[in-house]
Amino acid sequence: MATSVSKKDLTIPGTMKAWVLDGPGQLRLVEKPVPEPGPAEILVRIDAVAICGTDVEILAKGLPAWIGGGLPFHKNFTPGHEYMGTVVKLGPGVDEFQIGQRVAVEIHAGCGRCERCRMGMYTSCLNYGLNYGANNKGHRANGFTTNGGFAEYAINHVNTLVHVPDEMSDEEATLIVTAGTAIYGLDALGGLMAGESLAVTGPGPIGLMSVAVGKALGAQPVILTGTRDSRLNLGAKLGADYVINVQREDPVQAVRRITQGRGVHYVMECSGAANALNEALDMVNRGGRICLAAFPGEPVPVDLAKLVRNNIYVYGIRGEGRSATHRAAALMAQKRFDAKLMHTHTFSLDQVPTGIRYFRERIEDAIKVVIKVH
Amino acid sequence: MATSVSKKDLTIPGTMKAWVLDGPGQLRLVEKPVPEPGPAEILVRIDAVAICGTDVEILAKGLPAWIGGGLPFHKNFTPGHEYMGTVVKLGPGVDEFQIGQRVAVEIHAGCGRCERCRMGMYTSCLNYGLNYGANNKGHRANGFTTNGGFAEYAINHVNTLVHVPDEMSDEEATLIVTAGTAIYGLDALGGLMAGESLAVTGPGPIGLMSVAVGKALGAQPVILTGTRDSRLNLGAKLGADYVINVQREDPVQAVRRITQGRGVHYVMECSGAANALNEALDMVNRGGRICLAAFPGEPVPVDLAKLVRNNIYVYGIRGEGRSATHRAAALMAQKRFDAKLMHTHTFSLDQVPTGIRYFRERIEDAIKVVIKVH
Amino acid sequence: MATSVSKKDLTIPGTMKAWVLDGPGQLRLVEKPVPEPGPAEILVRIDAVAICGTDVEILAKGLPAWIGGGLPFHKNFTPGHEYMGTVVKLGPGVDEFQIGQRVAVEIHAGCGRCERCRMGMYTSCLNYGLNYGANNKGHRANGFTTNGGFAEYAINHVNTLVHVPDEMSDEEATLIVTAGTAIYGLDALGGLMAGESLAVTGPGPIGLMSVAVGKALGAQPVILTGTRDSRLNLGAKLGADYVINVQREDPVQAVRRITQGRGVHYVMECSGAANALNEALDMVNRGGRICLAAFPGEPVPVDLAKLVRNNIYVYGIRGEGRSATHRAAALMAQKRFDAKLMHTHTFSLDQVPTGIRYFRERIEDAIKVVIKVH
Amino acid sequence: MATSVSKKDLTIPGTMKAWVLDGPGQLRLVEKPVPEPGPAEILVRIDAVAICGTDVEILAKGLPAWIGGGLPFHKNFTPGHEYMGTVVKLGPGVDEFQIGQRVAVEIHAGCGRCERCRMGMYTSCLNYGLNYGANNKGHRANGFTTNGGFAEYAINHVNTLVHVPDEMSDEEATLIVTAGTAIYGLDALGGLMAGESLAVTGPGPIGLMSVAVGKALGAQPVILTGTRDSRLNLGAKLGADYVINVQREDPVQAVRRITQGRGVHYVMECSGAANALNEALDMVNRGGRICLAAFPGEPVPVDLAKLVRNNIYVYGIRGEGRSATHRAAALMAQKRFDAKLMHTHTFSLDQVPTGIRYFRERIEDAIKVVIKVH
Repeated sequence: MATSVSKKDLTIPGTMKAWVLDGPGQLRLVEKPVPEPGPAEILVRIDAVAICGTDVEILAKGLPAWIGGGLPFHKNFTPGHEYMGTVVKLGPGVDEFQIGQRVAVEIHAGCGRCERCRMGMYTSCLNYGLNYGANNKGHRANGFTTNGGFAEYAINHVNTLVHVPDEMSDEEATLIVTAGTAIYGLDALGGLMAGESLAVTGPGPIGLMSVAVGKALGAQPVILTGTRDSRLNLGAKLGADYVINVQREDPVQAVRRITQGRGVHYVMECSGAANALNEALDMVNRGGRICLAAFPGEPVPVDLAKLVRNNIYVYGIRGEGRSATHRAAALMAQKRFDAKLMHTHTFSLDQVPTGIRYFRERIEDAIKVVIKVH
Repeated sequence: MATSVSKKDLTIPGTMKAWVLDGPGQLRLVEKPVPEPGPAEILVRIDAVAICGTDVEILAKGLPAWIGGGLPFHKNFTPGHEYMGTVVKLGPGVDEFQIGQRVAVEIHAGCGRCERCRMGMYTSCLNYGLNYGANNKGHRANGFTTNGGFAEYAINHVNTLVHVPDEMSDEEATLIVTAGTAIYGLDALGGLMAGESLAVTGPGPIGLMSVAVGKALGAQPVILTGTRDSRLNLGAKLGADYVINVQREDPVQAVRRITQGRGVHYVMECSGAANALNEALDMVNRGGRICLAAFPGEPVPVDLAKLVRNNIYVYGIRGEGRSATHRAAALMAQKRFDAKLMHTHTFSLDQVPTGIRYFRERIEDAIKVVIKVH
Repeated sequence: MATSVSKKDLTIPGTMKAWVLDGPGQLRLVEKPVPEPGPAEILVRIDAVAICGTDVEILAKGLPAWIGGGLPFHKNFTPGHEYMGTVVKLGPGVDEFQIGQRVAVEIHAGCGRCERCRMGMYTSCLNYGLNYGANNKGHRANGFTTNGGFAEYAINHVNTLVHVPDEMSDEEATLIVTAGTAIYGLDALGGLMAGESLAVTGPGPIGLMSVAVGKALGAQPVILTGTRDSRLNLGAKLGADYVINVQREDPVQAVRRITQGRGVHYVMECSGAANALNEALDMVNRGGRICLAAFPGEPVPVDLAKLVRNNIYVYGIRGEGRSATHRAAALMAQKRFDAKLMHTHTFSLDQVPTGIRYFRERIEDAIKVVIKVH
Repeated sequence: MATSVSKKDLTIPGTMKAWVLDGPGQLRLVEKPVPEPGPAEILVRIDAVAICGTDVEILAKGLPAWIGGGLPFHKNFTPGHEYMGTVVKLGPGVDEFQIGQRVAVEIHAGCGRCERCRMGMYTSCLNYGLNYGANNKGHRANGFTTNGGFAEYAINHVNTLVHVPDEMSDEEATLIVTAGTAIYGLDALGGLMAGESLAVTGPGPIGLMSVAVGKALGAQPVILTGTRDSRLNLGAKLGADYVINVQREDPVQAVRRITQGRGVHYVMECSGAANALNEALDMVNRGGRICLAAFPGEPVPVDLAKLVRNNIYVYGIRGEGRSATHRAAALMAQKRFDAKLMHTHTFSLDQVPTGIRYFRERIEDAIKVVIKVH
């Protein structure tokens, strides 16, 4: 449980412990200089960081090739992006936050100068990854292309911080960004969920958060599909009106049954299963909308005829745009759902590899594994 | 060329000639009673009707199964949906049109009572096809589920008519609904195209119209891809800034070359090719949008990872919703593009099968084949 | 408390008691034939009807002149629009509801054929009031232009009914349409309120519901301003984070104080006070949005410079469009706020004039006065 | 007519001529150092600058009080914001433009870190004016809060430049930003104007551009109202289908007459007349939308009842947001309308006061007065 701000030691040392990625799967704990915040930047002392599926992917493969090469991997890069902590130093011109405040983070700070950033689509920044060298456009995606949270301190752009209320634990606060991704997806789908039906496919962290947020926004009914009863039960606690174990009932049939043949208005696809989009196309009614928050590793057959004939819109989402993390923090501060239910394990900074193993192998049914740093 | 209203004979006979679909591919010319317009309906004397790819499909397969069974096919059903004509009789309570006015048609009249119709999404009516029996909800899709335009007269809901200016020929007016579909797609993509880049894949009638309409709305550049130079040349006349013959240049490479590596903002996919969506995903920039106005006959492999990682939205469109046909008629009345270029052949009502053969087999490079009825 | 469906007597008599408006302020209780539902219509036995400020206005002035003349006022017209009841007869082709189901109502059924209805804007129907004579376009606004709910039975278009859950009392269900108006306003403002700040000015029924719904959707903070502590206290119970008695603190100052100088994102103006829009313009931040759900009786000075210079959008709303009543019913079924707190008095059908007097003169601090009919 | 890039002298001197505002109405020509571009900035050699109504206001009153005090007025400030020129120096990290390219400007570069900028609403930046001192957030509004274009050189943020095609004259290019404001307004109104009706009230530069852009986007009909026939005639040349001299016909009556009683879908209010909003409320149909691009100097009576009862939305716009200037440049490059018609007078940099006098006093019917600098 986070102690109050005034009792914390905010002294900044010269160096810090940080995990760096040497090569595929090779994390190493090193001593690094604590970085200095520049204009519009803040130094955050990391208090807790959660492990995400994308961390596992980055550790295994390096940064996905689509972002572009030439980035500082396998050298000195620190992954980790679901972190929270305490403001300990302000860069020049920063007065939006004060030292000692507790904050959770967003991942993406757009360059602010490309076409997408100007439109407000900063998670789709066209200068993604350009934070280095002569071509530095100032884009940040902490834990992806700039140093992240498996460390004692991290730099954040002022745009990527949200306040954490006193009564929220560090562990719970690491889940704000996950809820933010769910909200970003629901925002793409239309935003005003109240009284409309939502199916969430895949009870991973983002799926569970989509259930929680969808219900908090008034969706009715919220249907969760998945393969493991333990996860589905958790989904029910987080707000799902119906949970469907796809090993016992066909999910499309179940959705049709629950909605009396009408289908749902919206599907949040969070499983990445090969047939998930086809099933979603059968779950929504004519004119319905589908958000893809996950995807299969390879191209999969999709029945596009259904998409066109039924006037269906499909929204791919990257990250937690449109200030979704602020919205997520507000819903969690209002205790609209109990995100803590998703937190299953805690380890120390020294134990990052163990935490990752628990998460990846789902040891003891791990969902959200949190590294407590300070 | 249409003569003026007053010179036309608006007398309504008791019976009319009409083609009906007996079975797959079996069109038969019969004598039918001229139908009576009910409340909110208008009787239109058909002056001209164009042949569309969907007509060919309906003739071959009957109405696609997705709309539902139990409909009056293979009996007395008259296909044909791209028609125009003259108002000859008004149903009770109709004062929106006057007898003698020239009109072009939209296909879809929603039931007005389902959830989608109430939202304004009448082409996605949830009571699609329900125009018969005890369950009659009043939905109409002329030429699809209610009688269409390969006939001398047809009933239209008052919602599905737009005025045709005096100076526009009957043949050109049959193309309004095609332009309407293109506008509906561009509307889904965002509507305000001016200064944004648009790739149109597939130079069929909807693709060519998407070029024309996209350019009329100020898109810059407009790039058209296809396999046949004759169609591409026509696209250039209709407003394409660049045309790419995909047999000579890879279309993705071409789009990247023309946009100096940035990709386009929007793709209108009008080819239905198996790999078209994957190519479109590579053509748009991060955060871009794709409209699917065509689709392959079978499920095809799609690389959903690109869709999600790049925050891409994909819009399936059915028909010509959101008053797109009114917008199309206005642009054509303003002579923003020369739709007549797409009209290649004319036949009489007796020659419908011949016209369909010309269209289907692209005889003499047929694009839009028009049946002149009156 | 509503008894279960099966225990109710659903027999339909030949005539019914109904109040009719003879002239300004002249309500008279008469015996009328029970009306017959036509196609797409349902006969509702009215179980309860609440009194609204607009009822008071209609009684005093007849239907406002802006709707158009020639309507059947001062003859046989029955006002009352916030009612709920039980489905007792279905018109031809209706299968969306079943006899015995409890329903609450929306006011507006658009004509379904004008430009606005086709766009989904059925409360802005361009054929408003046209339900009579040769020009009958089928528009209904029950209690405004077609017969309403101060009676034992009423006809409703199938589009204007929402289901009432068993556990919700008749009295509470009469408030669904009020909540619907609030949601329609919040939808106009953007819909996704979570984490954004909302000021509601005026604690009348719509203002109080805006507080309740805004908070249910996650707005933070929700600030309510008004002149009477009793109403403000009720607002606090319904979800307001701050209540401001404008007789003790300037509301603009208060909003600025609470938001640390930033102003709010949204204002829902529900007071109709002469200076309310000017104050709202000072309450929102640059780029903010204001919904007007109330208005002064006469033109008032407005500082348009602030509106333009600060890029502010102002949304006038009429009624409860965009399926807002369905959303409201869902939030209330989910018990997201306690609408019953607003219900203060109950009278019988014979006592309609007394009920109106209680409401109008705010006797015993009346807020929602409900007439229990069956 | 602009000569080609290569023939221009791009040498940058140490100092430059610039007009500065000493006090109300006191412009003085001084010699200033040529400024240095910082990161994300570009030094533009000003080739031409047009005079705008806001310039006149700033000269008379200083920067409007709403932006905040403490800004560097009456000292060394250079006004002028409708300029174009040539890129002569790139700040660090800038590769979006190349030296020698001709560019036109937008006024507003948001801070990129406030809530509005993150949403893409950079003209509504919450850090408006903060470009100085410890609190420097990097906001720029050239000619408003940072130095503008009545000078030989100016700094621009990379976000505020658009390319000018070779064949467009310097004088015409100064009008891009005016067209951008018109597009921003039409974008607020919905963007897809094709086939919808638009009334533009007030034939000043923004009104005339709204006519031109509205017609270019396919609005039908476009109606322009004003008091001077010369301006109205120009409006007709720019695309107005109807022009109404309000001294000869009531504009509301005229709009109703032209639209056969239906009213228009949209009004762009560009006159700032005291009764303009009330008239606009009578011009639009139920559910219509009004954009305010101008405003009266003082609060004026507004009949808000009409706004609410008719579900009308009113959009105040500030500046040229949402990349409108890029769209404007594209339409002008495509020669969709002849902006040059609005350019009436040319003066040299030494003659700025004379040019302003011509513009303000409308000498020789001046519309757009351009200062040719290089």
